Amino acid sequence: MVPSKIILGIDPGTNLLGYGIIEVNGSKLKLLTLGELRLAKYENHGDKLLVIFNRVCELVEGYKVDEVSVEAPFYGKNVQSMLKLGRAQGVAIAAAISKGLKVYEYEPRKVKQSVTGSGSATKAQVASMLEKLLNAKIDKETLDATDGLAVALCHHFQFAPQVFGSKKGKNDWKSFIANNSDKVIK
Amino acid sequence: MVPSKIILGIDPGTNLLGYGIIEVNGSKLKLLTLGELRLAKYENHGDKLLVIFNRVCELVEGYKVDEVSVEAPFYGKNVQSMLKLGRAQGVAIAAAISKGLKVYEYEPRKVKQSVTGSGSATKAQVASMLEKLLNAKIDKETLDATDGLAVALCHHFQFAPQVFGSKKGKNDWKSFIANNSDKVIK
Repeated sequence: MVPSKIILGIDPGTNLLGYGIIEVNGSKLKLLTLGELRLAKYENHGDKLLVIFNRVCELVEGYKVDEVSVEAPFYGKNVQSMLKLGRAQGVAIAAAISKGLKVYEYEPRKVKQSVTGSGSATKAQVASMLEKLLNAKIDKETLDATDGLAVALCHHFQFAPQVFGSKKGKNDWKSFIANNSDKVIK
Repeated sequence: MVPSKIILGIDPGTNLLGYGIIEVNGSKLKLLTLGELRLAKYENHGDKLLVIFNRVCELVEGYKVDEVSVEAPFYGKNVQSMLKLGRAQGVAIAAAISKGLKVYEYEPRKVKQSVTGSGSATKAQVASMLEKLLNAKIDKETLDATDGLAVALCHHFQFAPQVFGSKKGKNDWKSFIANNSDKVIK
């Protein structure tokens, strides 16, 4: 019997962090939780990072998470926003690493494509597909959190993701680029 | 008798992370260690983050560090490099947070100014002043690491730094901006 696997998906932003946790048991998928961390209320950027770190640690421990996947945009509006986004991503990644877990990352377009078949799907379309795949009802009020759930599903569907914390091998950056030349930003 | 305080200063970059640790005992300053983490050899960006996280954790535990300060540029060449820099910063900050420590951040110009009196001092000038302040010899080969040591000194010299992980109060972002209007990037 194949043991079940718990995947935590995170969409770390500077104002909102969405997350979803699924349990994979053979071909069966089960939604364990879906939530969001509203970060806009913290005026101090450092407080946001602390809240992100603590919540990710709590989720990993509380749900006995096996693998973590992160939605990671590679570009953005300006250098200021990218620095802050990078910090939020870095803290979420480090929280998972601190619990001894591997972290995988996927571009937003890849996440939408793997869940809906279209890289330009809307949030509502992604949510609708997630409901079908997980046989669960997703509250419209948590629509912002679905990106986190989607990246957990995306990870489950993947074959050759980029692995944080792995040693060189099939999952190293070179192989990832060789297998995913369409993702390289020229 | 005032207990001594151990400060770890970090200059986290994507290709090189410099660090220095000082012990403050009243008005006496002592250099405990100075080093650098060469990250360019890791092809996988995730491996870099893992190495940063582990090294910062090791330093904090190994030297029984009390406070951590980070040199944090707020702008850079392009969005790609800022995202990577933000991740490196975020991981270093999270490593310190994971050990229960507060993290303070300072702009490069502020660091140079507090150590040498000039915000545009060269690395050699900063190193020369660090040698005097710490009564220690700094190897020219570790010149790149001195930015980490400098930010530890800068933190010691500071009065109202921005604190990561603090609750609202005198150290919150608003107060920091109010007290440091020259640092706000328009």
